Amino acid sequence: MSIPSFYANSPRHLVAVDCIIFGFEDGRLKLLMMKRKVDPMEGAWSLVGGFVQEGESTDDAAARVLQLTTGLDNIYMDQLKCYGDVQRDTGARVISIAYYALIRIQEHDRVLATEYGAHWLSLHQIPDLIFDHSQMVQDALARLRDKARFHPLGFELLPEKFSLPQLRDLYEEIYQRELDKRNFRKKILAMGIMEKLDEKDKSTSKKGAHLYRFDKQKYEALTRHGFVFEV
Amino acid sequence: MSIPSFYANSPRHLVAVDCIIFGFEDGRLKLLMMKRKVDPMEGAWSLVGGFVQEGESTDDAAARVLQLTTGLDNIYMDQLKCYGDVQRDTGARVISIAYYALIRIQEHDRVLATEYGAHWLSLHQIPDLIFDHSQMVQDALARLRDKARFHPLGFELLPEKFSLPQLRDLYEEIYQRELDKRNFRKKILAMGIMEKLDEKDKSTSKKGAHLYRFDKQKYEALTRHGFVFEV
Repeated sequence: MSIPSFYANSPRHLVAVDCIIFGFEDGRLKLLMMKRKVDPMEGAWSLVGGFVQEGESTDDAAARVLQLTTGLDNIYMDQLKCYGDVQRDTGARVISIAYYALIRIQEHDRVLATEYGAHWLSLHQIPDLIFDHSQMVQDALARLRDKARFHPLGFELLPEKFSLPQLRDLYEEIYQRELDKRNFRKKILAMGIMEKLDEKDKSTSKKGAHLYRFDKQKYEALTRHGFVFEV
Repeated sequence: MSIPSFYANSPRHLVAVDCIIFGFEDGRLKLLMMKRKVDPMEGAWSLVGGFVQEGESTDDAAARVLQLTTGLDNIYMDQLKCYGDVQRDTGARVISIAYYALIRIQEHDRVLATEYGAHWLSLHQIPDLIFDHSQMVQDALARLRDKARFHPLGFELLPEKFSLPQLRDLYEEIYQRELDKRNFRKKILAMGIMEKLDEKDKSTSKKGAHLYRFDKQKYEALTRHGFVFEV
């Protein structure tokens, strides 16, 4: 089929996907980053990403990048935003669609990530990034904070069984501030989306911390319903 | 400056913006639509849009489309989503960035819109649209409903002075269901973001309906703070 002239005469652009991949480990929110392998800015820190190929949807391109760097597929990914400024990439004009993913860091393929040259950096370790990638990270964090205010959060990031201190660490990382222990405990339990297990996590104290599990149905109902969570 | 081979060897794509422009008039939420002027699907109903040009950011392209069709600039526009499926446009592979705008329909340039071939259609008048434009409209409505639940809404769409029945009409259009009058009145006034004026709108009843105006500062504070609005 020949392309109508309306299309044929219009400019074409490089389109990239950039992926903000969040994980949670050792009480820290972490991001999967890599050192850029090409010029300009070879060796500088960057999000993982790549160009959208012919015959490949933007969603598929983001899934490909996630799979290449973590070995994971069927992961919760959402579009963050399109970054469409003309000068954003110093190599050429590139329109970037940013995606963010929340993964259980324990389940990703560490060998694959290392071979790819990808590293998990916690928030306070993240250096200046190339182009507008620092802005993308800030925007993704703002999106996470927004999610945390109006929807339950943690299911995608925490291991299946987790303690209240772990969940509070996660919220503290997202909000970037300390939360009151008792207040957090009261409010998070009041959501009614967690099931207390007959097991304890004894890694952090002798007495141990009770383990919980999300009730997936209640969690999803609250996700649909929304609320305001202030701690 | 020569383009690094990493960029030069990557595929390029047509990138469009499609704009979902909402207005509110005669108690109806309306959308600015047009009949497509080019093949394929010439004459079919479409959102207003266009291709992103060289040296033009995607935001600027959306602002250009809005300005061309309504005469308005400096308008609240937000990205909705990138639509990146390979087959979405039957003419060629086009990646589209959808934007939505909320405008005061009374303030747009009717002559310009008509000359451009654009028409305001209320939600129940909207026919099948080309490509994935019906999906874009559905997604924009879902975004509006989400906004209405967690943030105040109406400032961008209503005239400066408006009555409670007008505001309820707007919410009914967004939610696509009837709302209880007394309950709505109580909850919307409890937000504390409206100022009651010493004027009445006598266009709909002899007794008239009091006119209100948003308190911009309180409105914006509530926008930042968020809440859950259930009616």
